[in-house]
Amino acid sequence: MALTKETTALYAGSFDPPTYGHLNIIERAAKIFPKLIVAIGSSADKKPILTCEERMELLRGICSGLQNVSIESYNGLTANFAMHQGASVLVRGVRNSNDWSYELAGATMNQKLVEDLETIIIPANQSYCHISSSLVRELTSHGGDISSLVPPLVRQKITDKFT
Amino acid sequence: MALTKETTALYAGSFDPPTYGHLNIIERAAKIFPKLIVAIGSSADKKPILTCEERMELLRGICSGLQNVSIESYNGLTANFAMHQGASVLVRGVRNSNDWSYELAGATMNQKLVEDLETIIIPANQSYCHISSSLVRELTSHGGDISSLVPPLVRQKITDKFT
Amino acid sequence: MALTKETTALYAGSFDPPTYGHLNIIERAAKIFPKLIVAIGSSADKKPILTCEERMELLRGICSGLQNVSIESYNGLTANFAMHQGASVLVRGVRNSNDWSYELAGATMNQKLVEDLETIIIPANQSYCHISSSLVRELTSHGGDISSLVPPLVRQKITDKFT
Amino acid sequence: MALTKETTALYAGSFDPPTYGHLNIIERAAKIFPKLIVAIGSSADKKPILTCEERMELLRGICSGLQNVSIESYNGLTANFAMHQGASVLVRGVRNSNDWSYELAGATMNQKLVEDLETIIIPANQSYCHISSSLVRELTSHGGDISSLVPPLVRQKITDKFT
Amino acid sequence: MALTKETTALYAGSFDPPTYGHLNIIERAAKIFPKLIVAIGSSADKKPILTCEERMELLRGICSGLQNVSIESYNGLTANFAMHQGASVLVRGVRNSNDWSYELAGATMNQKLVEDLETIIIPANQSYCHISSSLVRELTSHGGDISSLVPPLVRQKITDKFT
Amino acid sequence: MALTKETTALYAGSFDPPTYGHLNIIERAAKIFPKLIVAIGSSADKKPILTCEERMELLRGICSGLQNVSIESYNGLTANFAMHQGASVLVRGVRNSNDWSYELAGATMNQKLVEDLETIIIPANQSYCHISSSLVRELTSHGGDISSLVPPLVRQKITDKFT
Repeated sequence: MALTKETTALYAGSFDPPTYGHLNIIERAAKIFPKLIVAIGSSADKKPILTCEERMELLRGICSGLQNVSIESYNGLTANFAMHQGASVLVRGVRNSNDWSYELAGATMNQKLVEDLETIIIPANQSYCHISSSLVRELTSHGGDISSLVPPLVRQKITDKFT
Repeated sequence: MALTKETTALYAGSFDPPTYGHLNIIERAAKIFPKLIVAIGSSADKKPILTCEERMELLRGICSGLQNVSIESYNGLTANFAMHQGASVLVRGVRNSNDWSYELAGATMNQKLVEDLETIIIPANQSYCHISSSLVRELTSHGGDISSLVPPLVRQKITDKFT
Repeated sequence: MALTKETTALYAGSFDPPTYGHLNIIERAAKIFPKLIVAIGSSADKKPILTCEERMELLRGICSGLQNVSIESYNGLTANFAMHQGASVLVRGVRNSNDWSYELAGATMNQKLVEDLETIIIPANQSYCHISSSLVRELTSHGGDISSLVPPLVRQKITDKFT
Repeated sequence: MALTKETTALYAGSFDPPTYGHLNIIERAAKIFPKLIVAIGSSADKKPILTCEERMELLRGICSGLQNVSIESYNGLTANFAMHQGASVLVRGVRNSNDWSYELAGATMNQKLVEDLETIIIPANQSYCHISSSLVRELTSHGGDISSLVPPLVRQKITDKFT
Repeated sequence: MALTKETTALYAGSFDPPTYGHLNIIERAAKIFPKLIVAIGSSADKKPILTCEERMELLRGICSGLQNVSIESYNGLTANFAMHQGASVLVRGVRNSNDWSYELAGATMNQKLVEDLETIIIPANQSYCHISSSLVRELTSHGGDISSLVPPLVRQKITDKFT
Repeated sequence: MALTKETTALYAGSFDPPTYGHLNIIERAAKIFPKLIVAIGSSADKKPILTCEERMELLRGICSGLQNVSIESYNGLTANFAMHQGASVLVRGVRNSNDWSYELAGATMNQKLVEDLETIIIPANQSYCHISSSLVRELTSHGGDISSLVPPLVRQKITDKFT
């Protein structure tokens, strides 16, 4: 039980860019778990609109009030990164039933890769179910208003970079 | 953060009877949270095959090795019971995408009833996705073998009571 | 095209009781269609918590500001009632993907029963996706707070009747 | 209510190429709404098999008997185009439950971008549920028979262009 | 391989009443498998509108042209009946994604009860996706036209019995 | 009925690479049908990690104990290949409800292309539901352990080729 109290959770993703949906999951997970690592998975084959460094800076900014949250980045498999960080729980935000099968397969695989690595799912707040990074990117490319989708810091960064 | 470490989680259900699926969720939640309350919700209108007392006894038996788990029962709304027990997290096991919409509505409602009451979902282990209490009851009514579905203690109780 | 402008839509249901979810669909459908009939389908085998008359009175009350909405009740098949009322469109509110298959089957059947009877689906507002009459009834039976689920008029009626 | 009678609906898509499924939604929406705009959204990053002009010509051809339907094209956000055209309703055809979550997110976002912009969903006729433009393109690339999927005018155009 | 050629398949259900949807699955399964048993599962707790004998008679009538199909009835578990009949394959008709999770759990359980008992799913023909016995019963109770849902023999029986 | 006994089934896919999930479907289909063709569909636009020849060699290796299974490859439409091979049944493995709509559309289209071509679905064994070729490719690219996902022969080939 002593170990239990030290549970470290990992919330991994692309965060390209971080959205209000991400922030909501982070805030809620930070209340549930003693320590939460938010980590940007760098994937060589995707072309992000923000560099990994930019995304880390934005996540640090919007999470600055959450003292048990740290921001990291990693390459390779999420399960391996969790193990190296001592995280025993993967946190996933799920918005709709379409995501479910994908998450279930991922949870099963991660447990096969690293024994005892649990995946827990936090259902997205109804107010944020429609938000995704890809929607932000699409709106940005058309000059649409993203202020209801991302924190001001993120919007500013995107405005500076793309207009 | 001190408060976070004391997170109490509540896993509520009918447990009529408790299955290997329930036990799996209990064991995994007991590793994630410092304290886990497993609680039988008594509903006047359902006719269970096991009394609430029988179900509590069985849950106590199959959870006897889990020191941070306590067994309770309650009437009324799960959210109210959680509040009274000081539980800030509801644990739900989900087996398939059909359950998702139901769980999402429940999570939203419970957060409206008791502010800051979080719901987290643990995806059922693939080996237990087909198990439900209703399947156990159906097999029992036809004299089918339930040994792959429930712990020996539960099977013994059902055998004693129904054959 | 002259006929098109006269399109009458029918929004049928049990409304036991009417909820904020129903009201939201009614308000939105009333903006889309020149005339909207809201109709309570009486089914002999269900035991409603409110009589058909009580539900009609409540619907009249909460829709009093909507001049192109009329409240009716009917027995038998919805498709037949639509035909008799001159409604060419059935309006359905859908909350989640689980409802989808059910609605699709209903839309197909209704078109077979009454040719040219169209079904259109209005996706529930995210703020109301968790609301259902059965949730209201369940909360009512446990003395839970339903003020976020139903208009004040409905809550008052239920309070008067059940407490 | 006077305004209601003037409801203009917008059915936007890629229509690359237009299919019997599209035509079915157009015909049904044209019966429901006084005015229907069918609009081709031009997206710079996709490589269509037909130019925007070719698709507009085909849509004009297959909709020639529908007097309240006009054919347009646009760049940028659908919600903005709807606003500029005075359309208050977006029409979407949905074939299966997988599409549902996507459409729900889109409906929510479009209402945030343009207040009072409603989305209504017309469930695809069962006879057309399997039809999609991508299926037509795939069959075309393999020399398969597309005559059950697209109107003769479309098939002729594709035959002329690709064989 | 010799054994394979003798594959006997079992299509079990309530058939209360048999529909065009059932008949379509039977006809297709009878083309795939050398021998097909269509079996009515009698369940004590349901109150069918047709007796088991009436349903057997109807199934015999509508399957009279299919020489490799036999009609049976059984009590108890479907898996046990399959074993006793020497059937190695359970045939299931599935109409939509909602049914999927239910069928998957059933397939898993049946394979645990009787080793090597396979379940194969035949996707319902699009023209019959909306048909279910419960829809037929509902229409019958309201005097609706069921001629598009059931074969003439079944409609005649229901007309004779209920009008 | 004589024809029925000769039923040839076709299991087509990319098999890039073949997985334990594929092998499970092959073994089960080989027990159900007298003759099973496993066929690699070559698609010009995809960039496989294994050549068609390598995949055929692997499939021949892992299916060497199944005497009624033959390995083929084809270009063009699966339905056409089935017809040319005399296969009257397409076998599909389905892992989750998300796949369902896609498979239903495919089954409908294939029956329109080649009359009497049936599609049957074998639900994936729960132990293999999380396995997909794309997961294997992703793990391979990160140096992850794929031994629980593919037969030893496949793992060896991938190890030889990519490390």
